[in-house]
Amino acid sequence: MSESSKPILYSYFRSSCSWRVRIALALKGIDYETVPINLTKDGGQQFSAEFQTLNPMKQVPALKIDGITIGQSLAIIEYLEETRPAPPRLLPQDPKKRASVRMISDLIAGGIQPLQNLSVLKQVGTENQLPWAQKAISFGFNALEQILQNTAGNFCVGDEVSMADLCLVPQVANAERFKVDLGPFPTISRINKTLLALEAFQVSHPCRQPDTPAELRA
Amino acid sequence: MSESSKPILYSYFRSSCSWRVRIALALKGIDYETVPINLTKDGGQQFSAEFQTLNPMKQVPALKIDGITIGQSLAIIEYLEETRPAPPRLLPQDPKKRASVRMISDLIAGGIQPLQNLSVLKQVGTENQLPWAQKAISFGFNALEQILQNTAGNFCVGDEVSMADLCLVPQVANAERFKVDLGPFPTISRINKTLLALEAFQVSHPCRQPDTPAELRA
Repeated sequence: MSESSKPILYSYFRSSCSWRVRIALALKGIDYETVPINLTKDGGQQFSAEFQTLNPMKQVPALKIDGITIGQSLAIIEYLEETRPAPPRLLPQDPKKRASVRMISDLIAGGIQPLQNLSVLKQVGTENQLPWAQKAISFGFNALEQILQNTAGNFCVGDEVSMADLCLVPQVANAERFKVDLGPFPTISRINKTLLALEAFQVSHPCRQPDTPAELRA
Repeated sequence: MSESSKPILYSYFRSSCSWRVRIALALKGIDYETVPINLTKDGGQQFSAEFQTLNPMKQVPALKIDGITIGQSLAIIEYLEETRPAPPRLLPQDPKKRASVRMISDLIAGGIQPLQNLSVLKQVGTENQLPWAQKAISFGFNALEQILQNTAGNFCVGDEVSMADLCLVPQVANAERFKVDLGPFPTISRINKTLLALEAFQVSHPCRQPDTPAELRA
């Protein structure tokens, strides 16, 4: 296989949506090349004409794989699962459990993250950013904590890592960055801690990416 | 089958996310009961203790089906597709086309709708609501129009109705409600018009629901 046929992940070290996909790639053992897209440098490299052609939403991640380019992290993860179904599975076999995984994933990817991403925070103005982000995350985590009490085992849904866990850990990292009090969310905190001990979550961590600034490396 | 075993959809006539699910139920020919949750009456019926138990996100839709309750419209639609796979399929068979369907669905469900939903608009304040919503929708539609030029046939992805179309039509209705100029989006407009002629999109329309106010009925 030639070097150029490796999947290419357009990613930003701190992007929680990019992290979701990096975990999936790590779990599936898929070798890939990272092209860093710096969301703050040069007014945002995601706005370049070249990147817009790849992902018209001007967002990371985007994954070039199998001759196509996919935007939207959950669509990427579902594609990886469907085309690389070898274990570990990112979705359970049982349809009801799959529904729980997707409900939790969508709750985070559609109900929390979009409200506290960079472009929205720019719009709400500097002094409002922190309370705005905290409110969005706390509201969503309140719901998530309640849902997890019915679905969780060691992980978000039962005892197997799933797409829901790929969404959880990066969102908790955002919560910490925005100084959200995690005290009211013991189940979220417990699962997050368990997941962070797994290798796929460590190698994909924002502090260990090719574009991680030296001062943030660990 | 007893009356109580019919699926129950918790829905609000004007909720674009509820409409997505209503279209899916209509396409699949699934008989269901509607329980209206009025998002503006009584300070928002989604905030009642009873409803919060069903959907901790305090949002519609939620679907009670097969002994479980699912929140998040796309998770519901994926569940219906997996458990009721008889035609019409809501996702194509080809994994690359499925990726396109999910990318478009997530773009709308995660990249547009959350930024212009009721709770966010309340936060931005009355005078900012219209420009805020218009900006979010126009930004997303710019990307979507570009993506559709590669994926669309008669519908969003090829010539079969898919989950992406179930997201498109309710989002265009929101765009019209917020007076977004649809001139720059000819592909979106064409597909929307074609879809609105289909029976499943008509019976599920906000102007024909049990909770549609008399003055908005058609």
